[in-house]
Amino acid sequence: MDNRPIGFLDSGVGGLTVVKEMFKQLPEEEIIFIGDQARAPYGPRPAEQIREYTWQMVNFLLTQNVKMIVIACNTATAVVWKEIKEQLSIPVLGVILPGASAAIKSTQTGKIGVIGTPMTVKSDTYRDKIQRLAPEMEVESLSCPKFAPIVESNQMTSSVAKKVVYETLAPLVGKVDTLILGCTHYPLLRPIIQNVMGQSVKLIDSGAETVHDISVLLNYFEINRNRKQKEAQHHFYTTASPKGFKEIAEQWMGRKITVEHIDL
Amino acid sequence: MDNRPIGFLDSGVGGLTVVKEMFKQLPEEEIIFIGDQARAPYGPRPAEQIREYTWQMVNFLLTQNVKMIVIACNTATAVVWKEIKEQLSIPVLGVILPGASAAIKSTQTGKIGVIGTPMTVKSDTYRDKIQRLAPEMEVESLSCPKFAPIVESNQMTSSVAKKVVYETLAPLVGKVDTLILGCTHYPLLRPIIQNVMGQSVKLIDSGAETVHDISVLLNYFEINRNRKQKEAQHHFYTTASPKGFKEIAEQWMGRKITVEHIDL
Repeated sequence: MDNRPIGFLDSGVGGLTVVKEMFKQLPEEEIIFIGDQARAPYGPRPAEQIREYTWQMVNFLLTQNVKMIVIACNTATAVVWKEIKEQLSIPVLGVILPGASAAIKSTQTGKIGVIGTPMTVKSDTYRDKIQRLAPEMEVESLSCPKFAPIVESNQMTSSVAKKVVYETLAPLVGKVDTLILGCTHYPLLRPIIQNVMGQSVKLIDSGAETVHDISVLLNYFEINRNRKQKEAQHHFYTTASPKGFKEIAEQWMGRKITVEHIDL
Repeated sequence: MDNRPIGFLDSGVGGLTVVKEMFKQLPEEEIIFIGDQARAPYGPRPAEQIREYTWQMVNFLLTQNVKMIVIACNTATAVVWKEIKEQLSIPVLGVILPGASAAIKSTQTGKIGVIGTPMTVKSDTYRDKIQRLAPEMEVESLSCPKFAPIVESNQMTSSVAKKVVYETLAPLVGKVDTLILGCTHYPLLRPIIQNVMGQSVKLIDSGAETVHDISVLLNYFEINRNRKQKEAQHHFYTTASPKGFKEIAEQWMGRKITVEHIDL
């Protein structure tokens, strides 16, 4: 038993898709979330900058006495997960391996698509992880630089969103039977993505898969929170305006939260 | 990547239910299995003896250069998992936490049954783990001392087996909606158990659940076996006669294996 919170970090609001899944699967766990909205999206930034910003969030979470850190951002996972995991004494999870592993189990044709930010696609981490586990898989990666900004600006249901998703995903349609939503922002665009790709394509939400792994690791390291404790008090921080964050977060998660501003 | 084998240990043949699931879910992994058939079942033995015997198997597996150890025996897990895990530098998994965790997710009524050996039931480890994770659950434990010997003597489909299962489980019928098969031998009696408990009762195979956790931990520790390696060569050892082991093992797993005798 360990009643300390779990720390989640993301470049912006995308990591909330993982938090939403936490509320569903592990409601007893306490969460501290930080989104670096002031500097989102991370996708187009150089690796060294992503590394620096991510470490700043990690260091903030460590001051909050977290028992585990979840890098709820594919871009940051691709660039710096391994380094952070090796340097900290608490468990550190990324979102890429759980997504890659789930896609391998899901595909029937061996043709897996991955959509992500420019940095995630450029790093080729998904292809690397998938083909290490299963060299026979074919992986089609596609960079979707416009998706995360649409979510960050809360335009998920706009006609612009539909047009952008339709045009961006066109090269993948009909080519894969499984598509990894390789950015934690993308589940907020899920209905449009599913519509464009076709109902038979299995969409893998890397964030939701990650929560299952969090559950296994909480058990393995015996650091679950005791349910007899008082109700979990979650904390949300953003480097930008709490108002904008709160609006998207409450809409997406269907619950009221308090959001504080933080400078890193 | 880590191409070394995973070590499995059990008091006898029960742990093969976990190995069978490994072949299904993680066929690329190489397995070294040891069953202490000469001294099975462990269930009625005193804790100190179970501890001693289990450590003997662990030490044998360590000489085989394994990358992970799976205690594929509920009794040994209940008595000595924590100690072994704390003392080794490689990951060590037991079968109890995965089963407990799966049962909590499965139950609708909050009434969970656990069947196991006398030692597993006496240790109350399942109740302890379940109620730590979810204090609101009611747990009914039942010792089934005759089940493992039926499996070890390959009498799974006999009329004696049916009678014993029927009589033993009677106190649980109608009282739980989820039943943990809290001994890795019991999945070999699954059709009879399901029939006695009723089709609506969800049977939790702690061994099968464990394989999912193995998969997550292989990913987390980045010690998956490279699939480009030559085909996995599995090794099976028993402290008793290889003939008897081989007979049950091949029948249960539906594949030919070689079995060697080993003295501990």
